[in-house]
Amino acid sequence: MHILVTNDDGINAPGLLALAQGMRRLGKVSVLAPDHNWSASGHVKTMHRPLRVKEAPLADGSLALTTDGAPSDCVALAMMGLLPEKVDIVLSGINPNANIGYDVTYSGTVTAAMEAIIWGVPGISVSVDAPENHAGFLDYETAAKVASHITALVMQNQLPKGTLLNVNVPYLPDAQIKGYKITRQGLRVYNDSLIKREDPRGRPYYWIGGDAPTAVLEEGTEFRTLSEGYVSITPLQLDLTDYSAIKILSNWQWD
Amino acid sequence: MHILVTNDDGINAPGLLALAQGMRRLGKVSVLAPDHNWSASGHVKTMHRPLRVKEAPLADGSLALTTDGAPSDCVALAMMGLLPEKVDIVLSGINPNANIGYDVTYSGTVTAAMEAIIWGVPGISVSVDAPENHAGFLDYETAAKVASHITALVMQNQLPKGTLLNVNVPYLPDAQIKGYKITRQGLRVYNDSLIKREDPRGRPYYWIGGDAPTAVLEEGTEFRTLSEGYVSITPLQLDLTDYSAIKILSNWQWD
Repeated sequence: MHILVTNDDGINAPGLLALAQGMRRLGKVSVLAPDHNWSASGHVKTMHRPLRVKEAPLADGSLALTTDGAPSDCVALAMMGLLPEKVDIVLSGINPNANIGYDVTYSGTVTAAMEAIIWGVPGISVSVDAPENHAGFLDYETAAKVASHITALVMQNQLPKGTLLNVNVPYLPDAQIKGYKITRQGLRVYNDSLIKREDPRGRPYYWIGGDAPTAVLEEGTEFRTLSEGYVSITPLQLDLTDYSAIKILSNWQWD
Repeated sequence: MHILVTNDDGINAPGLLALAQGMRRLGKVSVLAPDHNWSASGHVKTMHRPLRVKEAPLADGSLALTTDGAPSDCVALAMMGLLPEKVDIVLSGINPNANIGYDVTYSGTVTAAMEAIIWGVPGISVSVDAPENHAGFLDYETAAKVASHITALVMQNQLPKGTLLNVNVPYLPDAQIKGYKITRQGLRVYNDSLIKREDPRGRPYYWIGGDAPTAVLEEGTEFRTLSEGYVSITPLQLDLTDYSAIKILSNWQWD
């Protein structure tokens, strides 16, 4: 099995190293990750400029490649033949914050798994639900083990065509994780607000600031499941059609 | 009615001007658009750097604002209070290429409408299905009229909560457009391939190249509807959960 590992935090992120190391138990691992952070960057296809690729060994000395493209570009590059060997599955992460609710539409971590699906290969995004104000160092070991376990199951059972998995792992020691639950996408509540400042020359600039996002704790959602100490596995797909709205809109007087 | 008009092609794009002019028939229009092209840029929330905003009149002399943020940032800025007056609806476009199938996950045009929904305001993305190799000048007049008509209907009838509209208009004169159809998201087929080149110093770089994307012409999809000369209106929503996969995955042996 040939596993492509990527992320949106960049080639030097400790979560990427942990994920690559965890995946080596299952097969051959290739790492191709962005050379800088693409958090909240969305699903990108870089066509207006060329992409550079270079070698950049990970902290454990293993070979890896990095590019100035986005996480989804990393997947596309690999699929188009930059990696000579066929990729069997794409793992993206480990993101140091949960990707839940609307986050999945912004998340670079999730878009890498989306891009895999578009190329006809299974994709899994992995995030750990670390506290917002952690002191810097995060332990990714539990999440890496979880990712290996899920990947092994996916390779045994096969995902339905067009389905990616968005995995969120509670930030708890192994022994405290209660198990796995299949979840649906919940409702994120963003608490963004505009912060206006002035530069030294008196010209305004704006930060998107505010409080950390919260979420509605509905039964069956990732957020609820995480808060109860379970690993959350949300199957996602890329048909955004609002089928219930088709009927409603069909009754409007269009012409 | 206060209408926010934005796009992903940038403040100087003729499609933006046509959309703003078309919307003025319906109410007060504010234009806030990116200062450069964000095509295929995905859903972005710029939090790692501040955003600049400045005045940039459109080609007809009307007032407009531009920012170095993404299309979705434009919407967020307006909603967070950069525009003092409450926004009633967001229009994004007019994009010079159709946004169909998986395009909606990459499209900056569509992400602006997504961001509107997240802020609880209706959002409509508008694209014209111009031929890939057009000579440069495009006539946006028909698409602008279509956008006004749809927006007026949306304000009368109210969209279901959480639904955005992704509108694609055939590149045809008014009289040849057959009408409006409510559609579902179709299946895009990308024909991307990797093009490797060498710079003057002998170092490789890569283009995502290949042929233009095609699409599966299934009944009820945007692509089919466009090809038959109808305006395609696809209701989209942001819950990506693959509900049919939940049952399948629940039967796997997770623990």
